[in-house]
Amino acid sequence: MTAPEPFDAVDVIRAKRDGGRVPEDALRWMIDAYTRGYVADAQMSAFTMAILLNGMERDEIRVMTDAMIASGERMSFASLGRPTADKHSTGGVGDKITLPLAPLVATFGVAVPQLSGRGLGHTGGTLDKLESIPGWRAALSNEELFAQLGDVGAVICAAGAGLAPADKKLYALRDVTGTVEAIPLIASSIMSKKIAEGTDALVLDVKFGSGAFMKDHARARELAETMVALGSDSGVKTSALLTDMNAPLGRAIGNANEVRESVEVLAGAGPADVVELTVALAREMLALAGRPDADVEGALADGRAMDTWRRMIRAQDGDPDAPLPTPRETHTVAASRSGVVTRMDAFDFGVAAWRLGAGRARAQDPVVHAAGIDLLAKPGDIVSEGQPLFTLSADDAARFDRALAALDGAYEIGDTAPERPPIVRERITA
Amino acid sequence: MTAPEPFDAVDVIRAKRDGGRVPEDALRWMIDAYTRGYVADAQMSAFTMAILLNGMERDEIRVMTDAMIASGERMSFASLGRPTADKHSTGGVGDKITLPLAPLVATFGVAVPQLSGRGLGHTGGTLDKLESIPGWRAALSNEELFAQLGDVGAVICAAGAGLAPADKKLYALRDVTGTVEAIPLIASSIMSKKIAEGTDALVLDVKFGSGAFMKDHARARELAETMVALGSDSGVKTSALLTDMNAPLGRAIGNANEVRESVEVLAGAGPADVVELTVALAREMLALAGRPDADVEGALADGRAMDTWRRMIRAQDGDPDAPLPTPRETHTVAASRSGVVTRMDAFDFGVAAWRLGAGRARAQDPVVHAAGIDLLAKPGDIVSEGQPLFTLSADDAARFDRALAALDGAYEIGDTAPERPPIVRERITA
Repeated sequence: MTAPEPFDAVDVIRAKRDGGRVPEDALRWMIDAYTRGYVADAQMSAFTMAILLNGMERDEIRVMTDAMIASGERMSFASLGRPTADKHSTGGVGDKITLPLAPLVATFGVAVPQLSGRGLGHTGGTLDKLESIPGWRAALSNEELFAQLGDVGAVICAAGAGLAPADKKLYALRDVTGTVEAIPLIASSIMSKKIAEGTDALVLDVKFGSGAFMKDHARARELAETMVALGSDSGVKTSALLTDMNAPLGRAIGNANEVRESVEVLAGAGPADVVELTVALAREMLALAGRPDADVEGALADGRAMDTWRRMIRAQDGDPDAPLPTPRETHTVAASRSGVVTRMDAFDFGVAAWRLGAGRARAQDPVVHAAGIDLLAKPGDIVSEGQPLFTLSADDAARFDRALAALDGAYEIGDTAPERPPIVRERITA
Repeated sequence: MTAPEPFDAVDVIRAKRDGGRVPEDALRWMIDAYTRGYVADAQMSAFTMAILLNGMERDEIRVMTDAMIASGERMSFASLGRPTADKHSTGGVGDKITLPLAPLVATFGVAVPQLSGRGLGHTGGTLDKLESIPGWRAALSNEELFAQLGDVGAVICAAGAGLAPADKKLYALRDVTGTVEAIPLIASSIMSKKIAEGTDALVLDVKFGSGAFMKDHARARELAETMVALGSDSGVKTSALLTDMNAPLGRAIGNANEVRESVEVLAGAGPADVVELTVALAREMLALAGRPDADVEGALADGRAMDTWRRMIRAQDGDPDAPLPTPRETHTVAASRSGVVTRMDAFDFGVAAWRLGAGRARAQDPVVHAAGIDLLAKPGDIVSEGQPLFTLSADDAARFDRALAALDGAYEIGDTAPERPPIVRERITA
């Protein structure tokens, strides 16, 4: 005989609909009953819409996060005998930071178990980028993950299906019901997975601006504060950097070209903004992991981080020396006038790269590893009429038209150099 | 090959979620695509929650109502060659008004095609009440409906499944997703069915107070104004009476006992509040149908309305002279002190009658026709200690305890007679 359900989904929905708090036991039940399939999709989507429009108190978000963690397995890296640190970015255009960051931090004896995802929409996915490397594989068993963390210290691999299954089901539902953009839902989604992963320290790269999920600085700050509190309440040392995502990060947008740019950074070079953000996040992770004085820039300059990178790629059957895929077709856009580049819109460039094949519209679609955009000038650069501005790459020249359409009005050349505020705009701690 | 869908459900949901208006073509598509099953329940429930929390402009409600009408068949009584008038009540406790009202109005040559429903929850259903009459059947073919309208002039029967199927699907969804209580959704649900029925004139009995769906006078007025505008915009002469539902209507709450009380009214007697409301609604219907001077009270006093009632019941195979079902068990509650009855709460008495078996919890449940409550005193009546206040009736004495629990605190005897405002509190016209 089945035990009777202790709550009624309609009562739980009504509580949030009418602007009230959902009692802890009712909220835990709602998440559990939805994961079990007792609460229907239609009930959960009405509930998430009510959350989106009426908000949630901080402690309701904590309960929801806990309930999502409790829906699946929970990992622990305690057996490694050294601190672990992890980074999560809310997603941006040209955001390849995880690639240089994980080996850089691991160089200082802090284990980095970077469980990552694939891209969907205009922002790329870390696993998609790394799969440009011949032989490299994203799927590791738990044994392989632990062995590599012990040996190399850094792993970037696919998150297993056992972590926070409630979040997977909920995210798929939110995606088709217009309930993605709610801070309580975003925060609990990200943090349930990260807390279930069992890292000691977590640094959040919360982006704002045109190419970010959060367009608005204040909303990004609210999200960051919410997530930092959730992590801290769960015993994870958590901080967040609020970073600017109005222009693409670095000069490469795509997959193979982003790996190339990451390797440049690991070789002590690379675009200033990518280096700046990589160093800032590495310092933050190392500080939380008890290594505040680590010489991060030294490890990039002297090849130690590059060495960890090569071992990390090899450990997952990748060949760090193999040539990366090159595109069949390219199309270069030149400056229509002389002047200074005043603006390049991250969202529009992200959409253009996506249309070139660098991203996917549906989860089951493949990506084209050689597709993307290389920026030959960036905001603040002085250009002459006819000088190349950026190059589109694709496997099929037919893709250029729709990509160029996305770029209509996406960049400007003017007479006055734009202000260039620092990438890292704010630091949020518990 | 299937034509591509012209809209994306997520865009439509987002438009309402973000507080904007949904464009007419997108809204029509949303209702149509939901009826077809292309838009999922989970998407529609997120949309209805966004409507509940963000509201809808009057013309959005009109478009939604039109789209629900367009989802099914539309009737026309033009071939009858006489005006038609219809009444809809938002539901109350002891509300048997349709029973005397339909034959009363038909007595004056106005056809009354009263397509009705069954009860769910604490308010009864007109068809449930009439089914207390031995032999009476609720289901008529369209041919039978038209023949009876032509012959008797009054029909109370079950609404066919072909009217506004979008509303049927939507109502079932709203019921399980906490999205019932939204004026745009209530108004479009009621009016889509009533407009599809093709009546010339429609009077809405919009109730407010404890036993009503709308507890609040101002919200009831907003609902009434919305529905009157929808009817008028569709060419139906529509008005609404805002009526008090804080105390049960009349002295009978149930099914068979409400039929008995209705027959008393048709015999020129009956409780004053039931007579008052029946007469007010009849005058309103007749005025809209072009008979403002009809002698409504005369037709009750001289037996003409009773004669139409008897013909109406016989036409649907009912025996107006057959004894009505009587209960196996009764339990009478006496006054605990002498004084004046100051309050009887409609909602609590409705719940008690429901628990006695007069109503149903699930659509597929049967009702007990002899179950219910007879009020032997009403607010304003002077009572002596030990004098019977009300009698509970059921088929099983085990039901009395839970019914009495619902009545705990539901009535009061005091020293000062309560104010008794008129039942009809306001009249809303286009």
